[in-house]
Amino acid sequence: MNVDVDLSPLREYLSVENVDGYLIDDDAADSDQRYVSGFTAPDPYQTLVTRDGVHLLVSGLEYGRASSEATADSVTRRAAYDYQRLVADHGQYEGTIRMLAAFLEDHDVASVAVPRNFPTGTADGLREHGLAVTVEPDGIVTDIRATKTDWEIDQIRASQRANEAAMARAEELIATADVEDGVLVRDGEPLTSEDVTEEIEVTLLRHGCALDETIVACGADGADPHDRGSGPLEPDELIVIDIFPRDKETGYFADMTRTFARGEPGDEARRRYDVTREAYEAALETVAAGVTGADVHDAACDVIEDAGYETLRSDPNAETGFIHSTGHGVGLDIHEEPSVSPAGGELQAGHVISIEPGIYDPAVGGVRIEDLVAVTEDGYENLTAYRIGLEPTAGGRQ
Amino acid sequence: MNVDVDLSPLREYLSVENVDGYLIDDDAADSDQRYVSGFTAPDPYQTLVTRDGVHLLVSGLEYGRASSEATADSVTRRAAYDYQRLVADHGQYEGTIRMLAAFLEDHDVASVAVPRNFPTGTADGLREHGLAVTVEPDGIVTDIRATKTDWEIDQIRASQRANEAAMARAEELIATADVEDGVLVRDGEPLTSEDVTEEIEVTLLRHGCALDETIVACGADGADPHDRGSGPLEPDELIVIDIFPRDKETGYFADMTRTFARGEPGDEARRRYDVTREAYEAALETVAAGVTGADVHDAACDVIEDAGYETLRSDPNAETGFIHSTGHGVGLDIHEEPSVSPAGGELQAGHVISIEPGIYDPAVGGVRIEDLVAVTEDGYENLTAYRIGLEPTAGGRQ
Repeated sequence: MNVDVDLSPLREYLSVENVDGYLIDDDAADSDQRYVSGFTAPDPYQTLVTRDGVHLLVSGLEYGRASSEATADSVTRRAAYDYQRLVADHGQYEGTIRMLAAFLEDHDVASVAVPRNFPTGTADGLREHGLAVTVEPDGIVTDIRATKTDWEIDQIRASQRANEAAMARAEELIATADVEDGVLVRDGEPLTSEDVTEEIEVTLLRHGCALDETIVACGADGADPHDRGSGPLEPDELIVIDIFPRDKETGYFADMTRTFARGEPGDEARRRYDVTREAYEAALETVAAGVTGADVHDAACDVIEDAGYETLRSDPNAETGFIHSTGHGVGLDIHEEPSVSPAGGELQAGHVISIEPGIYDPAVGGVRIEDLVAVTEDGYENLTAYRIGLEPTAGGRQ
Repeated sequence: MNVDVDLSPLREYLSVENVDGYLIDDDAADSDQRYVSGFTAPDPYQTLVTRDGVHLLVSGLEYGRASSEATADSVTRRAAYDYQRLVADHGQYEGTIRMLAAFLEDHDVASVAVPRNFPTGTADGLREHGLAVTVEPDGIVTDIRATKTDWEIDQIRASQRANEAAMARAEELIATADVEDGVLVRDGEPLTSEDVTEEIEVTLLRHGCALDETIVACGADGADPHDRGSGPLEPDELIVIDIFPRDKETGYFADMTRTFARGEPGDEARRRYDVTREAYEAALETVAAGVTGADVHDAACDVIEDAGYETLRSDPNAETGFIHSTGHGVGLDIHEEPSVSPAGGELQAGHVISIEPGIYDPAVGGVRIEDLVAVTEDGYENLTAYRIGLEPTAGGRQ
């Protein structure tokens, strides 16, 4: 359990704004609520942060699990506020508002700050019952959870272990494929992006992780950083594999990219691979608490521009070269704070960030190399243990 | 593509309430937006329904895909409203509000209705810019999408095909396990709920589906309808398997439950199985357009109560017997309208509902039998093709 959560910046906000509590009304999709309450459920539930505690309101169905799993200081069932009767008397919508109003009153809360994504129906309903509802505009909880506890870093590391197993399986498939008539072949059939993606996903499932999307993009597909790839994989082409699994129990993501080529991708592709690797190393060498995400991004851009390729820094409208940012925070969301981009602020010890420079051009294909690291006071701890190399090998992840 | 979406009830609402448009601001988690726009994306995007069209606002990254995939009448890039400059000048939050205000103005919209879960930050921000924002309290879009188009029923049927393959794999594992020292055994190791779940999930993945949770619950675990099950499976016990996969491309769910027992579960368990099957058949026979969900639920309760077991109708506080509702709508959400419960209103042709009575008692275990059916004018079409029988067989799904 993530017991070291420090909500003091949120409580300071409540104090400065003279607001009694901070209310979240969401479901499993909301990582802020999962973080604050130590609990998640498929159906909506509510979390109230007051100056002295974290209070959870859940359905009877979830009560037992919430009581044993949540890090919140108190867990209350909807039935405590006669929820069924309120719904019978006033309908689902107004009944839920009245239950929430009673829950807030129970905790002596007459004014709440809410996140930007708080439901307007709930906000307006509570206002009609005389409660003051204001939006907290800065995403304080999202900022708090950018800095990971040791427990969280352990969970992310575990997801990256699953990721390494999946990457090894993908690399093995590419390394051991036959080459016939200009395509990679397995068991007499063309080996496709979809085949490799399926094997990646099955491997992740067997390691307790799930994911919605994987990128296995060959040739020109790989030159679009968001193309998931499709169709037969080809020899002598760059193949970008980007995997971002989420542990099904803990909810923590990992993220890694490798680029491979079977056969001979050509001198220009090899040069881009080497430059990307240098940019990756330069960015990593820059990472430390106190350095900004913008500094890290600049380090990657310097290498890539010096090698003669465009970046969004040298040309904001560039369509080839390094056309995305260097990295992003990873945690309960796959993209979260901090940003490792021109807008990136100061890195802090405990931030977990991806470092993933790349160089793209439809005529050559794409290269991207990505590790996941935890920022430390004087540098970083790499959470990724996977060999970097253009030649795919079977069983050679280290 | 789901081109037969009929938004006329929503447009009637706009007309009656004298509101210019209906605005959704959400991401892939929101099935209403996916339904209305024919598009989904991991990051937030906006959909505006006016009296004469559906208009989508997306990031440049999503523009190409939205233009080719969405059923919306128009797709606009954020850049059309100088989004980057607005964010640079006013910050992310206020910049986004100003972009939305410009998008609404562009469509001559000065007042919007929004769903209950619309972000309060956006609602309050638009209000500060002089727009009228009111909550549409009845969930009109959710109601509209309860009635499926033919295309949607095809997608749900396809998901149920994947489900049948997964159920067959689970049944085969139970049928072919050895029995040693009071547990089912495969390859010399106890066969656990977790093992069967993993094989179900792998099978679904290979059929293009994903799922977050599966129930493989043996003995007393199966007596709690929401227990996912854990540990070694045992002979002579009831084993409830409930699978609800979602197609990764289309987003449509399916749902099916079967109950098996290896060996001899005993006369009482067999009787409960037979009564559950009778209740399932009685409920199915009741289904037709014009009948209410409550009628269908009553038909199942009649059978179960007549056999001497409790239901929530005979005792609202019952902890054993039939302790949930008979079914629910299934579509882009796993639980959606209509309800097949005491609160269930009139069924309409095109509704897709689960029929899933069950009888539970920790002393005996759980039984549940569930098919997925489409309501027709004079009955139903069963979207499920999977044998019902307590004895597991390998390769005997029909």
